[in-house]
Amino acid sequence: MQYADQLKNLGTETAFAVSAQARAWAAKGHKVYPFHLGDINLATPENIVDATLKGIRDGKTGYCPSEGILPLREALAHDVGSRRGISFGPENVSVQPGGKPTIGKFIAAVMNPGDEVLYPNPGYPIYESQIEYQGGRAVPYNYVQTDSGFDIDMDKLKASISDNTVAIIYNNYQNPISAESSQEEMEAVAQLAIEHDLWVLTDDAYYEMIYKGEARSIAALPGMKERTVILYTFSKKYAMTGWRVGGSIGPEKIIKIISKLNVNAESCTTHFIQDAMVEALTGDPSGAQSILNTLRDRRDAAVAGLNAINGINIPTPRSTFYLFPNVNEIMARKGYNKIDQLQLGALENANVSFCTRDHFGRPQAGETDFFIRFAYSGISVDDINEGMAQLKSYFESK
Amino acid sequence: MQYADQLKNLGTETAFAVSAQARAWAAKGHKVYPFHLGDINLATPENIVDATLKGIRDGKTGYCPSEGILPLREALAHDVGSRRGISFGPENVSVQPGGKPTIGKFIAAVMNPGDEVLYPNPGYPIYESQIEYQGGRAVPYNYVQTDSGFDIDMDKLKASISDNTVAIIYNNYQNPISAESSQEEMEAVAQLAIEHDLWVLTDDAYYEMIYKGEARSIAALPGMKERTVILYTFSKKYAMTGWRVGGSIGPEKIIKIISKLNVNAESCTTHFIQDAMVEALTGDPSGAQSILNTLRDRRDAAVAGLNAINGINIPTPRSTFYLFPNVNEIMARKGYNKIDQLQLGALENANVSFCTRDHFGRPQAGETDFFIRFAYSGISVDDINEGMAQLKSYFESK
Repeated sequence: MQYADQLKNLGTETAFAVSAQARAWAAKGHKVYPFHLGDINLATPENIVDATLKGIRDGKTGYCPSEGILPLREALAHDVGSRRGISFGPENVSVQPGGKPTIGKFIAAVMNPGDEVLYPNPGYPIYESQIEYQGGRAVPYNYVQTDSGFDIDMDKLKASISDNTVAIIYNNYQNPISAESSQEEMEAVAQLAIEHDLWVLTDDAYYEMIYKGEARSIAALPGMKERTVILYTFSKKYAMTGWRVGGSIGPEKIIKIISKLNVNAESCTTHFIQDAMVEALTGDPSGAQSILNTLRDRRDAAVAGLNAINGINIPTPRSTFYLFPNVNEIMARKGYNKIDQLQLGALENANVSFCTRDHFGRPQAGETDFFIRFAYSGISVDDINEGMAQLKSYFESK
Repeated sequence: MQYADQLKNLGTETAFAVSAQARAWAAKGHKVYPFHLGDINLATPENIVDATLKGIRDGKTGYCPSEGILPLREALAHDVGSRRGISFGPENVSVQPGGKPTIGKFIAAVMNPGDEVLYPNPGYPIYESQIEYQGGRAVPYNYVQTDSGFDIDMDKLKASISDNTVAIIYNNYQNPISAESSQEEMEAVAQLAIEHDLWVLTDDAYYEMIYKGEARSIAALPGMKERTVILYTFSKKYAMTGWRVGGSIGPEKIIKIISKLNVNAESCTTHFIQDAMVEALTGDPSGAQSILNTLRDRRDAAVAGLNAINGINIPTPRSTFYLFPNVNEIMARKGYNKIDQLQLGALENANVSFCTRDHFGRPQAGETDFFIRFAYSGISVDDINEGMAQLKSYFESK
């Protein structure tokens, strides 16, 4: 019996290996400071839990439409549209079991084998994996470090577009680097998409994880609504990563295709959870606000802790729950030339677990800087402070 | 902007059109007798609902492993194994968001473009759709009507195997025809798989919907465990079609591949629902027994109602919740030559809604018999009796 040839192009999330290391270290009796997890150790708001139980009791336990229940599609169209200044109706929404399914289904809807799709690197590793698994060519675009964070390397992005390019994946409020486009940069990306007639997938997983000010969407720029699919997820805002509910939002024709893929892949997203998401979007918002406040406190503690380390200097990101410090000086001090040495060293000497640049897409030729990634969504302020103190001691030693 | 070429080979479940017709007829003020739905209008057992709420309160709301939580994989390995006389461990189980995801992921794991996969026709329409969408050739095998039900046309099945055949999809306790293999037939299918070194996907969605006696699994036959993936679902047994939880169970290597597909497709299945499924498998089984008893009463009423119609004569199936009567005589009496005429006529003249053979895979050249499909899982015994009386009157009139 054979296995499919195409599986050789199927990637994964290598960060699971870091989790395994952390678990193994904890099993030896060490208290581990978990900065490697992009998960949230906070409770889902109570009104959502109540609505879930009510949905089950009301018999929302049978099949529902593959595209999602109408009340949720209406609520998502209104919520996502009004937060972006775009008019959407339920025909623009396909409910999904999480944020991630939109990635694979978007690519399945627009890409033929051999086509090229631009994607951010460092970036969420599933972009690269799904493009290549589905037979396309994953063409990375990169970022340049600035005083205030990271900018897209627009020259490289422009130079990477070919006659075979069909789509660009754009992740403003970016995982893992917390990059945020200026208005000018966002307009430049949109201009490229329009000029070359490209589809755009905007991964808006962190669109509402903004600690100050407003979010801006590329889908709202002129000429963009008709070529843009928004990846929406409830996972972060409501601390419900394990519930698996989200949506694909975009032009009616591609949304119909995505819903037909739903029919084939999983029938529908959990019925009573969809019912509860109407409450999440239209009910008491104080639970989500409280989650954001807690994460802001953690951000401030984590940024302060990192900047207290001699050799690390990062700005305070306005969004996401990730920090992506450059650790060139630490690596030089330690005499390390592989980032894994620092990652394992921090676990074993400071009990601090984190991911590195290498967990977020294939490293590119010519990269000389070293970066590590901290997530502060799964660790309390007290533990952030303790962990950072231990890390300082390890990073500052030779 | 383009759409992917391969979408032209993506099928769907055409039975949704029947649901739309029934809804439209009901909206005109008619009471519709819904025999078209493969859904269950019974409550999920209370102990499962309680366990779900407990899981949420216990914080099972974050990500969990893509392959599923260990306690559920252990419970599934034990339950599925012991009901089939096979020894499985957690390494043989990949939890899925429903039964359906196993179909697409199994095909993705074993089939290359151009390969052939044998599948039952009439059968669940997603087999055909997923094989063709993923670039394979869907090669149907069929059934012959007997006094006791349906037998697989083994001559045609044998003749359909070529050097390009890589797998056979087998659905004992079959949707839509309720076919059940004799020991001899099951052994003959297994023999073909072994002889031609084929993978087998056994769709066991109805394996525990047996009204009398025991179920038997092809995976338990000699030489089969190492080439068989079992599609397991909680949907039918516990009346939880809308919860979306099931599993792929089979050899460790292919299960690892399927779990890697999970990482790429949807991260994981809803965490607290997995937690509750441990209770479903190991806790009080009386809820599931009560669901089965109710469905048995409905089966008996539906079989009696159909057999009271002049021109219909069906045996009583031991499993599933479907009936698949031959309606040649009714069609002749009505002077119809398209099964849609009878389907629409029954809705508009008897308020009875059902699917037809045409909703279960592409009809084959040379088919001369007419079949319709009744599901009795979403309709009470009283309504079955009322609906069947109206249907009798319509079917017996010229």
